[in-house]
Amino acid sequence: MVVTESVDCSLEGAVSSLRSGGFVLLHDATSRENEIDMVVAAEFTSPEHVRMMRAEAGGLLCVALSNEVGKKFGLVRMHDIFLSAARQYPILRSLNEEETPYGGRPAFSITVNHRRTFTGVTDLDRSLTISELAHLAKKAIENGQDSTGEFAKNFKAPGHVHLLLESEGSLEKRRGHTELSVHLCELAGLTPVVALCEMLDGNSHKALSIDSARTFARKNAIPIIEADQVISDFFKDSTFYAPQSVSPWNHGLS
Amino acid sequence: MVVTESVDCSLEGAVSSLRSGGFVLLHDATSRENEIDMVVAAEFTSPEHVRMMRAEAGGLLCVALSNEVGKKFGLVRMHDIFLSAARQYPILRSLNEEETPYGGRPAFSITVNHRRTFTGVTDLDRSLTISELAHLAKKAIENGQDSTGEFAKNFKAPGHVHLLLESEGSLEKRRGHTELSVHLCELAGLTPVVALCEMLDGNSHKALSIDSARTFARKNAIPIIEADQVISDFFKDSTFYAPQSVSPWNHGLS
Repeated sequence: MVVTESVDCSLEGAVSSLRSGGFVLLHDATSRENEIDMVVAAEFTSPEHVRMMRAEAGGLLCVALSNEVGKKFGLVRMHDIFLSAARQYPILRSLNEEETPYGGRPAFSITVNHRRTFTGVTDLDRSLTISELAHLAKKAIENGQDSTGEFAKNFKAPGHVHLLLESEGSLEKRRGHTELSVHLCELAGLTPVVALCEMLDGNSHKALSIDSARTFARKNAIPIIEADQVISDFFKDSTFYAPQSVSPWNHGLS
Repeated sequence: MVVTESVDCSLEGAVSSLRSGGFVLLHDATSRENEIDMVVAAEFTSPEHVRMMRAEAGGLLCVALSNEVGKKFGLVRMHDIFLSAARQYPILRSLNEEETPYGGRPAFSITVNHRRTFTGVTDLDRSLTISELAHLAKKAIENGQDSTGEFAKNFKAPGHVHLLLESEGSLEKRRGHTELSVHLCELAGLTPVVALCEMLDGNSHKALSIDSARTFARKNAIPIIEADQVISDFFKDSTFYAPQSVSPWNHGLS
Protein backbone atom coordinates (compact mmCIF):
# COMPACT_ATOMS: atom_id res chain seq x y z
CA MET A 1 0.00 0.00 0.00
CA VAL A 2 1.21 3.49 -0.83
CA VAL A 3 1.20 5.93 2.06
CA THR A 4 0.86 9.67 1.58
CA GLU A 5 0.55 12.33 4.27
CA SER A 6 -3.11 13.23 4.15
CA VAL A 7 -4.83 11.17 1.48
CA ASP A 8 -6.42 7.79 2.13
CA CYS A 9 -4.58 5.45 -0.26
CA SER A 10 -6.42 2.33 0.79
CA LEU A 11 -8.71 0.67 -1.75
CA GLU A 12 -11.62 2.20 0.18
CA GLY A 13 -10.07 5.64 -0.15
CA ALA A 14 -9.76 5.20 -3.91
CA VAL A 15 -13.34 3.98 -4.21
CA SER A 16 -14.55 6.91 -2.15
CA SER A 17 -12.67 9.38 -4.36
CA LEU A 18 -14.23 7.89 -7.50
CA ARG A 19 -17.70 8.05 -5.95
CA SER A 20 -17.34 11.74 -5.29
CA GLY A 21 -16.17 12.45 -8.85
CA GLY A 22 -12.51 12.65 -7.96
CA PHE A 23 -9.41 11.16 -9.56
CA VAL A 24 -7.45 8.07 -8.55
CA LEU A 25 -3.86 7.42 -9.63
CA LEU A 26 -3.42 3.76 -10.52
CA HIS A 27 -0.06 2.01 -10.91
CA ASP A 28 -0.12 -1.30 -12.77
CA ALA A 29 3.12 -3.15 -11.94
CA THR A 30 6.85 -2.60 -12.27
CA SER A 31 6.99 -5.82 -14.31
CA ARG A 32 4.24 -4.70 -16.71
CA GLU A 33 3.84 -1.22 -18.29
CA ASN A 34 5.09 0.32 -14.99
CA GLU A 35 2.78 3.21 -15.70
CA ILE A 36 0.52 5.34 -13.56
CA ASP A 37 -2.82 6.34 -15.06
CA MET A 38 -5.09 9.18 -13.93
CA VAL A 39 -8.53 7.63 -13.60
CA VAL A 40 -11.99 9.17 -13.16
CA ALA A 41 -15.48 7.67 -13.49
CA ALA A 42 -16.88 8.58 -16.92
CA GLU A 43 -20.25 9.58 -15.47
CA PHE A 44 -18.57 12.43 -13.54
CA THR A 45 -16.08 13.51 -16.21
CA SER A 46 -16.21 17.29 -16.71
CA PRO A 47 -14.28 19.60 -19.05
CA GLU A 48 -11.95 20.36 -16.11
CA HIS A 49 -11.22 16.63 -15.67
CA VAL A 50 -10.30 16.44 -19.36
CA ARG A 51 -8.04 19.48 -19.01
CA MET A 52 -6.32 17.92 -16.00
CA MET A 53 -5.75 14.63 -17.81
CA ARG A 54 -4.40 16.14 -21.02
CA ALA A 55 -2.33 18.84 -19.30
CA GLU A 56 -1.12 17.06 -16.15
CA ALA A 57 -1.03 13.42 -17.27
CA GLY A 58 -0.30 13.94 -20.98
CA GLY A 59 -0.95 10.48 -22.39
CA LEU A 60 -3.75 9.25 -24.62
CA LEU A 61 -7.21 10.08 -23.24
CA CYS A 62 -9.11 6.78 -23.28
CA VAL A 63 -12.33 5.37 -21.94
CA ALA A 64 -12.37 1.80 -20.64
CA LEU A 65 -15.68 -0.05 -20.77
CA SER A 66 -16.64 -3.26 -19.02
CA ASN A 67 -16.87 -6.33 -21.19
CA GLU A 68 -20.66 -6.36 -20.64
CA VAL A 69 -21.10 -2.74 -21.79
CA GLY A 70 -18.81 -3.30 -24.77
CA LYS A 71 -21.01 -6.19 -25.88
CA LYS A 72 -24.24 -4.22 -25.43
CA PHE A 73 -22.77 -1.43 -27.57
CA GLY A 74 -21.69 -3.95 -30.23
CA LEU A 75 -18.06 -2.84 -29.89
CA VAL A 76 -15.22 -4.78 -31.44
CA ARG A 77 -11.48 -4.65 -30.77
CA MET A 78 -9.43 -2.83 -33.40
CA HIS A 79 -7.43 -6.05 -33.66
CA ASP A 80 -10.53 -7.89 -34.90
CA ILE A 81 -11.59 -5.02 -37.18
CA PHE A 82 -8.14 -5.21 -38.80
CA LEU A 83 -8.41 -8.99 -39.26
CA SER A 84 -11.82 -8.57 -40.85
CA ALA A 85 -10.74 -5.77 -43.21
CA ALA A 86 -7.46 -7.59 -44.02
CA ARG A 87 -9.34 -9.63 -46.65
CA GLN A 88 -9.52 -6.37 -48.61
CA TYR A 89 -6.44 -4.61 -47.17
CA PRO A 90 -3.82 -7.32 -46.45
CA ILE A 91 -1.37 -4.88 -44.80
CA LEU A 92 -3.66 -4.72 -41.76
CA ARG A 93 -2.87 -8.33 -40.93
CA SER A 94 0.88 -7.65 -40.92
CA LEU A 95 0.51 -4.52 -38.78
CA ASN A 96 -1.70 -6.13 -36.15
CA GLU A 97 0.03 -6.43 -32.81
CA GLU A 98 -0.46 -9.93 -31.40
CA GLU A 99 1.58 -9.43 -28.25
CA THR A 100 2.65 -6.12 -26.70
CA PRO A 101 6.12 -5.89 -25.09
CA TYR A 102 4.37 -5.77 -21.68
CA GLY A 103 2.11 -8.78 -22.37
CA GLY A 104 -1.11 -9.35 -24.28
CA ARG A 105 -2.87 -7.56 -27.09
CA PRO A 106 -3.75 -3.87 -26.89
CA ALA A 107 -7.23 -3.25 -25.44
CA PHE A 108 -8.00 -0.66 -28.14
CA SER A 109 -11.38 -0.66 -29.81
CA ILE A 110 -12.47 2.25 -32.03
CA THR A 111 -12.25 6.03 -31.41
CA VAL A 112 -15.52 7.96 -31.08
CA ASN A 113 -17.08 11.42 -30.81
CA HIS A 114 -20.56 12.09 -29.47
CA ARG A 115 -22.75 13.29 -32.36
CA ARG A 116 -23.37 16.62 -30.60
CA THR A 117 -19.65 17.51 -30.67
CA PHE A 118 -18.07 19.87 -33.20
CA THR A 119 -14.41 18.98 -33.80
CA GLY A 120 -14.56 16.42 -30.98
CA VAL A 121 -11.21 17.35 -29.43
CA THR A 122 -11.90 20.26 -27.06
CA ASP A 123 -12.31 19.71 -23.31
CA LEU A 124 -16.03 20.41 -23.72
CA ASP A 125 -16.39 17.97 -26.61
CA ARG A 126 -14.35 15.17 -25.08
CA SER A 127 -16.09 15.45 -21.70
CA LEU A 128 -19.46 15.31 -23.47
CA THR A 129 -18.38 12.17 -25.35
CA ILE A 130 -17.07 10.56 -22.15
CA SER A 131 -20.02 11.36 -19.89
CA GLU A 132 -22.54 10.35 -22.56
CA LEU A 133 -20.80 6.99 -22.92
CA ALA A 134 -21.48 6.39 -19.21
CA HIS A 135 -25.03 7.70 -19.53
CA LEU A 136 -25.85 5.29 -22.37
CA ALA A 137 -24.05 2.41 -20.62
CA LYS A 138 -26.18 2.94 -17.53
CA LYS A 139 -29.36 2.78 -19.62
CA ALA A 140 -28.09 -0.33 -21.44
CA ILE A 141 -27.31 -2.12 -18.17
CA GLU A 142 -30.65 -1.15 -16.66
CA ASN A 143 -32.82 -2.23 -19.58
CA GLY A 144 -30.64 -5.29 -20.22
CA GLN A 145 -31.04 -5.00 -23.97
CA ASP A 146 -28.76 -4.80 -26.94
CA SER A 147 -27.97 -1.09 -27.41
CA THR A 148 -26.07 -1.21 -30.69
CA GLY A 149 -28.65 0.97 -32.42
CA GLU A 150 -28.69 3.52 -29.60
CA PHE A 151 -24.90 3.59 -29.60
CA ALA A 152 -24.69 4.38 -33.32
CA LYS A 153 -27.45 6.97 -32.95
CA ASN A 154 -25.42 8.83 -30.31
CA PHE A 155 -21.81 8.34 -31.40
CA LYS A 156 -19.79 8.55 -34.58
CA ALA A 157 -16.39 7.22 -35.56
CA PRO A 158 -13.51 7.68 -36.04
CA GLY A 159 -13.30 10.33 -33.32
CA HIS A 160 -11.11 11.75 -30.57
CA VAL A 161 -11.77 9.46 -27.58
CA HIS A 162 -10.17 6.01 -27.62
CA LEU A 163 -12.34 3.17 -26.37
CA LEU A 164 -10.70 0.29 -24.50
CA LEU A 165 -12.48 -3.00 -23.91
CA GLU A 166 -12.12 -4.96 -20.70
CA SER A 167 -11.04 -8.54 -21.39
CA GLU A 168 -13.55 -11.36 -21.07
CA GLY A 169 -12.79 -12.71 -17.60
CA SER A 170 -11.35 -9.35 -16.55
CA LEU A 171 -8.39 -9.59 -14.12
CA GLU A 172 -8.23 -13.36 -14.48
CA LYS A 173 -7.08 -12.85 -18.05
CA ARG A 174 -5.39 -9.46 -18.24
CA ARG A 175 -4.09 -7.02 -15.66
CA GLY A 176 -3.98 -3.75 -17.52
CA HIS A 177 -5.29 -0.35 -16.49
CA THR A 178 -8.45 -1.21 -18.44
CA GLU A 179 -9.40 -4.17 -16.24
CA LEU A 180 -8.13 -2.54 -13.03
CA SER A 181 -10.04 0.71 -13.48
CA VAL A 182 -13.26 -0.98 -14.59
CA HIS A 183 -13.13 -3.15 -11.46
CA LEU A 184 -12.56 -0.02 -9.32
CA CYS A 185 -15.69 1.53 -10.82
CA GLU A 186 -17.68 -1.60 -10.15
CA LEU A 187 -16.44 -1.67 -6.55
CA ALA A 188 -17.63 1.94 -6.22
CA GLY A 189 -21.07 0.91 -7.46
CA LEU A 190 -20.69 3.23 -10.45
CA THR A 191 -21.35 2.63 -14.14
CA PRO A 192 -18.35 0.55 -15.31
CA VAL A 193 -17.12 3.13 -17.80
CA VAL A 194 -14.01 5.05 -16.83
CA ALA A 195 -11.79 7.75 -18.33
CA LEU A 196 -8.05 7.26 -18.00
CA CYS A 197 -4.82 8.82 -19.19
CA GLU A 198 -1.17 7.78 -18.77
CA MET A 199 1.02 10.08 -16.66
CA LEU A 200 4.13 11.17 -18.55
CA ASP A 201 7.31 12.90 -17.42
CA GLY A 202 8.44 15.95 -19.39
CA ASN A 203 11.93 15.81 -17.89
CA SER A 204 12.94 12.20 -18.52
CA HIS A 205 10.51 11.96 -21.47
CA LYS A 206 9.51 8.55 -20.09
CA ALA A 207 6.51 7.43 -18.04
CA LEU A 208 6.19 9.37 -14.76
CA SER A 209 8.02 7.54 -11.98
CA ILE A 210 6.10 6.23 -9.00
CA ASP A 211 7.95 8.70 -6.74
CA SER A 212 7.00 11.71 -8.88
CA ALA A 213 3.42 10.43 -9.07
CA ARG A 214 3.31 10.23 -5.26
CA THR A 215 4.46 13.83 -5.02
CA PHE A 216 1.77 14.87 -7.53
CA ALA A 217 -0.83 12.84 -5.62
CA ARG A 218 0.04 14.51 -2.30
CA LYS A 219 0.03 17.97 -3.83
CA ASN A 220 -3.37 17.41 -5.44
CA ALA A 221 -4.89 15.29 -2.63
CA ILE A 222 -5.54 12.37 -4.99
CA PRO A 223 -5.32 8.76 -3.72
CA ILE A 224 -2.62 6.68 -5.41
CA ILE A 225 -2.95 2.90 -5.36
CA GLU A 226 -1.20 -0.21 -6.62
CA ALA A 227 -2.67 -2.83 -8.95
CA ASP A 228 -2.26 -5.51 -6.25
CA GLN A 229 -4.76 -3.69 -4.03
CA VAL A 230 -7.38 -4.02 -6.78
CA ILE A 231 -6.35 -7.55 -7.79
CA SER A 232 -6.50 -8.82 -4.20
CA ASP A 233 -10.05 -7.54 -3.94
CA PHE A 234 -11.04 -9.11 -7.27
CA PHE A 235 -9.86 -12.52 -6.07
CA LYS A 236 -10.89 -12.19 -2.43
CA ASP A 237 -13.52 -14.95 -2.66
CA SER A 238 -11.48 -17.11 -5.00
CA THR A 239 -8.87 -19.80 -4.47
CA PHE A 240 -7.43 -19.05 -7.91
CA TYR A 241 -5.26 -16.06 -7.14
CA ALA A 242 -2.11 -15.74 -5.09
CA PRO A 243 -0.83 -12.19 -5.75
CA GLN A 244 2.78 -12.93 -4.89
CA SER A 245 3.15 -15.98 -7.11
CA VAL A 246 1.54 -14.79 -10.34
CA SER A 247 3.57 -12.89 -12.86
CA PRO A 248 1.50 -10.31 -14.74
CA TRP A 249 3.32 -11.46 -17.87
CA ASN A 250 1.40 -14.70 -17.77
CA HIS A 251 -1.90 -12.94 -17.68
CA GLY A 252 -1.57 -10.56 -20.57
CA LEU A 253 -3.37 -12.52 -23.26
CA SER A 254 -6.84 -11.17 -23.79
CA MET B 1 -1.10 38.01 -42.78
CA VAL B 2 -0.65 37.89 -39.02
CA VAL B 3 1.84 40.36 -37.61
CA THR B 4 3.76 39.70 -34.42
CA GLU B 5 6.52 41.81 -32.91
CA SER B 6 9.62 39.81 -33.70
CA VAL B 7 8.68 36.64 -35.58
CA ASP B 8 8.45 36.44 -39.35
CA CYS B 9 4.86 35.32 -39.98
CA SER B 10 5.12 35.34 -43.75
CA LEU B 11 4.86 32.02 -45.57
CA GLU B 12 8.65 32.19 -46.00
CA GLY B 13 9.08 32.66 -42.26
CA ALA B 14 6.97 29.57 -41.59
CA VAL B 15 8.88 27.51 -44.15
CA SER B 16 12.16 28.65 -42.67
CA SER B 17 11.05 27.68 -39.16
CA LEU B 18 10.07 24.17 -40.35
CA ARG B 19 13.40 23.77 -42.14
CA SER B 20 15.30 24.47 -38.96
CA GLY B 21 13.23 21.97 -36.96
CA GLY B 22 10.99 24.60 -35.39
CA PHE B 23 7.24 24.80 -34.91
CA VAL B 24 4.66 26.69 -36.96
CA LEU B 25 1.19 27.57 -35.67
CA LEU B 26 -1.38 27.06 -38.42
CA HIS B 27 -4.93 28.45 -38.34
CA ASP B 28 -7.37 26.84 -40.77
CA ALA B 29 -10.35 29.23 -41.14
CA THR B 30 -12.99 30.82 -38.94
CA SER B 31 -15.60 29.18 -41.16
CA ARG B 32 -14.06 25.71 -40.81
CA GLU B 33 -12.70 24.09 -37.59
CA ASN B 34 -11.42 27.54 -36.53
CA GLU B 35 -8.53 25.75 -34.89
CA ILE B 36 -4.83 26.41 -34.57
CA ASP B 37 -2.51 23.42 -34.80
CA MET B 38 1.10 23.24 -33.64
CA VAL B 39 3.02 21.80 -36.57
CA VAL B 40 6.56 20.40 -36.88
CA ALA B 41 8.24 18.38 -39.64
CA ALA B 42 8.24 14.71 -38.62
CA GLU B 43 11.88 14.25 -39.60
CA PHE B 44 12.92 16.73 -36.88
CA THR B 45 10.45 15.66 -34.18
CA SER B 46 12.22 15.12 -30.86
CA PRO B 47 10.93 14.03 -27.43
CA GLU B 48 10.87 17.74 -26.47
CA HIS B 49 8.64 18.54 -29.48
CA VAL B 50 6.25 15.82 -28.33
CA ARG B 51 6.26 17.23 -24.79
CA MET B 52 5.51 20.72 -26.13
CA MET B 53 2.63 19.47 -28.28
CA ARG B 54 0.97 17.36 -25.58
CA ALA B 55 1.56 19.85 -22.75
CA GLU B 56 1.15 23.22 -24.53
CA ALA B 57 -1.24 22.34 -27.36
CA GLY B 58 -3.16 19.50 -25.67
CA GLY B 59 -5.04 18.00 -28.60
CA LEU B 60 -4.56 14.68 -30.35
CA LEU B 61 -0.98 14.11 -31.50
CA CYS B 62 -1.24 13.16 -35.18
CA VAL B 63 1.04 12.70 -38.16
CA ALA B 64 -0.17 13.85 -41.58
CA LEU B 65 1.30 12.08 -44.60
CA SER B 66 1.17 13.14 -48.21
CA ASN B 67 -1.16 11.19 -50.44
CA GLU B 68 1.87 9.75 -52.27
CA VAL B 69 3.53 8.51 -49.06
CA GLY B 70 0.23 7.10 -47.79
CA LYS B 71 -0.08 5.07 -51.00
CA LYS B 72 3.49 3.80 -50.83
CA PHE B 73 2.87 2.65 -47.24
CA GLY B 74 -0.37 0.94 -48.29
CA LEU B 75 -2.35 3.05 -45.81
CA VAL B 76 -6.12 3.17 -45.85
CA ARG B 77 -8.54 5.63 -44.26
CA MET B 78 -10.30 4.38 -41.13
CA HIS B 79 -13.53 5.20 -42.96
CA ASP B 80 -12.70 2.58 -45.62
CA ILE B 81 -11.47 0.04 -43.06
CA PHE B 82 -14.84 0.39 -41.30
CA LEU B 83 -16.75 -0.09 -44.56
CA SER B 84 -14.72 -3.19 -45.31
CA ALA B 85 -15.14 -4.72 -41.85
CA ALA B 86 -18.85 -3.75 -41.77
CA ARG B 87 -19.64 -6.93 -43.70
CA GLN B 88 -18.73 -8.76 -40.49
CA TYR B 89 -19.49 -5.97 -37.96
CA PRO B 90 -22.49 -4.01 -39.32
CA ILE B 91 -22.34 -1.37 -36.54
CA LEU B 92 -19.21 0.10 -38.17
CA ARG B 93 -21.26 1.26 -41.15
CA SER B 94 -23.71 3.14 -38.90
CA LEU B 95 -20.91 4.78 -36.89
CA ASN B 96 -18.92 5.94 -39.90
CA GLU B 97 -18.90 9.71 -40.22
CA GLU B 98 -19.69 10.73 -43.80
CA GLU B 99 -19.56 14.46 -43.22
CA THR B 100 -18.00 16.29 -40.28
CA PRO B 101 -19.76 19.43 -38.95
CA TYR B 102 -16.90 21.49 -40.45
CA GLY B 103 -17.04 19.80 -43.87
CA GLY B 104 -15.75 16.54 -45.31
CA ARG B 105 -14.79 13.19 -43.87
CA PRO B 106 -12.18 12.88 -41.12
CA ALA B 107 -8.65 12.36 -42.49
CA PHE B 108 -7.96 9.62 -39.92
CA SER B 109 -6.18 6.47 -41.00
CA ILE B 110 -4.89 3.96 -38.42
CA THR B 111 -2.87 4.57 -35.21
CA VAL B 112 0.67 3.17 -35.07
CA ASN B 113 3.70 2.58 -32.85
CA HIS B 114 7.21 1.96 -34.12
CA ARG B 115 8.17 -1.64 -33.34
CA ARG B 116 11.08 -0.48 -31.17
CA THR B 117 8.74 1.34 -28.74
CA PHE B 118 7.64 -0.08 -25.38
CA THR B 119 4.21 1.26 -24.39
CA GLY B 120 4.27 3.65 -27.36
CA VAL B 121 2.93 6.67 -25.47
CA THR B 122 5.97 8.32 -23.85
CA ASP B 123 7.66 11.36 -25.42
CA LEU B 124 10.59 9.11 -26.35
CA ASP B 125 8.35 6.47 -27.90
CA ARG B 126 6.09 8.85 -29.81
CA SER B 127 9.01 10.89 -31.17
CA LEU B 128 10.66 7.67 -32.33
CA THR B 129 7.46 6.62 -34.11
CA ILE B 130 7.08 10.06 -35.71
CA SER B 131 10.67 10.52 -36.87
CA GLU B 132 10.86 6.95 -38.19
CA LEU B 133 7.70 7.57 -40.24
CA ALA B 134 9.55 10.42 -41.98
CA HIS B 135 12.69 8.34 -42.33
CA LEU B 136 10.84 5.51 -44.08
CA ALA B 137 8.82 7.96 -46.20
CA LYS B 138 12.03 9.55 -47.43
CA LYS B 139 13.39 6.14 -48.46
CA ALA B 140 10.08 5.25 -50.14
CA ILE B 141 10.03 8.49 -52.15
CA GLU B 142 13.68 8.09 -53.15
CA ASN B 143 13.44 4.51 -54.32
CA GLY B 144 10.01 5.08 -55.86
CA GLN B 145 8.81 1.63 -54.86
CA ASP B 146 5.90 0.22 -52.94
CA SER B 147 6.98 0.16 -49.28
CA THR B 148 4.07 -1.70 -47.74
CA GLY B 149 6.30 -4.53 -46.56
CA GLU B 150 8.87 -2.15 -45.08
CA PHE B 151 6.09 -0.23 -43.34
CA ALA B 152 4.69 -3.35 -41.65
CA LYS B 153 8.21 -4.45 -40.72
CA ASN B 154 8.80 -1.17 -38.88
CA PHE B 155 5.40 -0.28 -37.45
CA LYS B 156 2.61 -2.02 -35.59
CA ALA B 157 -1.02 -1.12 -35.00
CA PRO B 158 -3.14 -0.09 -33.21
CA GLY B 159 -0.75 2.33 -31.50
CA HIS B 160 -0.45 5.80 -29.97
CA VAL B 161 0.20 8.07 -32.98
CA HIS B 162 -2.74 8.88 -35.26
CA LEU B 163 -2.01 8.90 -38.97
CA LEU B 164 -3.86 11.37 -41.19
CA LEU B 165 -3.95 11.02 -44.96
CA GLU B 166 -3.79 14.00 -47.28
CA SER B 167 -6.70 13.98 -49.73
CA GLU B 168 -6.12 13.02 -53.34
CA GLY B 169 -5.86 16.42 -55.03
CA SER B 170 -4.75 18.01 -51.75
CA LEU B 171 -6.01 21.61 -51.25
CA GLU B 172 -8.19 21.42 -54.35
CA LYS B 173 -10.36 18.92 -52.53
CA ARG B 174 -9.98 19.57 -48.80
CA ARG B 175 -8.56 22.42 -46.76
CA GLY B 176 -7.82 20.83 -43.42
CA HIS B 177 -4.67 21.02 -41.32
CA THR B 178 -3.63 17.76 -42.97
CA GLU B 179 -3.44 19.21 -46.50
CA LEU B 180 -2.16 22.61 -45.31
CA SER B 181 0.70 21.21 -43.24
CA VAL B 182 1.76 18.65 -45.84
CA HIS B 183 1.94 21.44 -48.43
CA LEU B 184 4.03 23.54 -46.01
CA CYS B 185 6.49 20.65 -45.67
CA GLU B 186 6.68 20.26 -49.43
CA LEU B 187 7.31 23.99 -49.81
CA ALA B 188 10.15 23.64 -47.31
CA GLY B 189 11.64 20.85 -49.42
CA LEU B 190 11.22 18.43 -46.51
CA THR B 191 9.79 14.92 -46.42
CA PRO B 192 5.99 15.44 -46.60
CA VAL B 193 5.28 13.88 -43.21
CA VAL B 194 4.36 16.27 -40.43
CA ALA B 195 3.42 16.06 -36.75
CA LEU B 196 0.55 18.24 -35.60
CA CYS B 197 -1.59 18.82 -32.54
CA GLU B 198 -4.65 21.04 -31.92
CA MET B 199 -4.19 23.94 -29.49
CA LEU B 200 -6.77 23.86 -26.71
CA ASP B 201 -7.76 26.42 -24.11
CA GLY B 202 -7.93 25.26 -20.48
CA ASN B 203 -9.93 28.32 -19.43
CA SER B 204 -12.78 28.33 -21.94
CA HIS B 205 -12.40 24.56 -22.50
CA LYS B 206 -12.77 25.29 -26.22
CA ALA B 207 -10.20 25.55 -29.02
CA LEU B 208 -7.54 28.18 -28.29
CA SER B 209 -8.60 31.53 -29.75
CA ILE B 210 -6.52 33.15 -32.45
CA ASP B 211 -5.66 36.01 -30.06
CA SER B 212 -4.38 33.65 -27.36
CA ALA B 213 -2.45 31.69 -29.99
CA ARG B 214 -0.78 34.93 -31.16
CA THR B 215 0.29 35.68 -27.60
CA PHE B 216 1.69 32.15 -27.27
CA ALA B 217 3.44 32.50 -30.65
CA ARG B 218 5.09 35.80 -29.64
CA LYS B 219 6.18 34.41 -26.27
CA ASN B 220 7.72 31.32 -27.86
CA ALA B 221 9.01 33.00 -31.04
CA ILE B 222 6.99 30.68 -33.28
CA PRO B 223 5.55 31.92 -36.61
CA ILE B 224 1.76 31.85 -36.79
CA ILE B 225 0.12 31.77 -40.23
CA GLU B 226 -3.31 31.60 -41.82
CA ALA B 227 -4.56 28.88 -44.17
CA ASP B 228 -5.03 31.44 -46.93
CA GLN B 229 -1.28 32.09 -47.03
CA VAL B 230 -0.71 28.40 -47.80
CA ILE B 231 -3.70 28.08 -50.13
CA SER B 232 -2.65 31.12 -52.17
CA ASP B 233 0.75 29.53 -52.71
CA PHE B 234 -0.78 26.18 -53.69
CA PHE B 235 -2.85 27.87 -56.40
CA LYS B 236 -0.32 30.49 -57.46
CA ASP B 237 0.12 28.99 -60.95
CA SER B 238 -3.50 28.04 -61.35
CA THR B 239 -6.57 29.84 -62.62
CA PHE B 240 -8.76 27.59 -60.49
CA TYR B 241 -8.52 29.34 -57.15
CA ALA B 242 -9.83 32.70 -56.01
CA PRO B 243 -9.33 32.78 -52.23
CA GLN B 244 -12.02 35.33 -51.51
CA SER B 245 -14.80 33.60 -53.42
CA VAL B 246 -14.40 30.00 -52.31
CA SER B 247 -16.06 28.83 -49.13
CA PRO B 248 -14.05 26.15 -47.36
CA TRP B 249 -17.34 24.36 -46.77
CA ASN B 250 -17.50 23.52 -50.44
CA HIS B 251 -14.10 21.92 -50.41
CA GLY B 252 -14.40 19.58 -47.49
CA LEU B 253 -15.27 16.37 -49.29
CA SER B 254 -12.23 14.17 -49.61
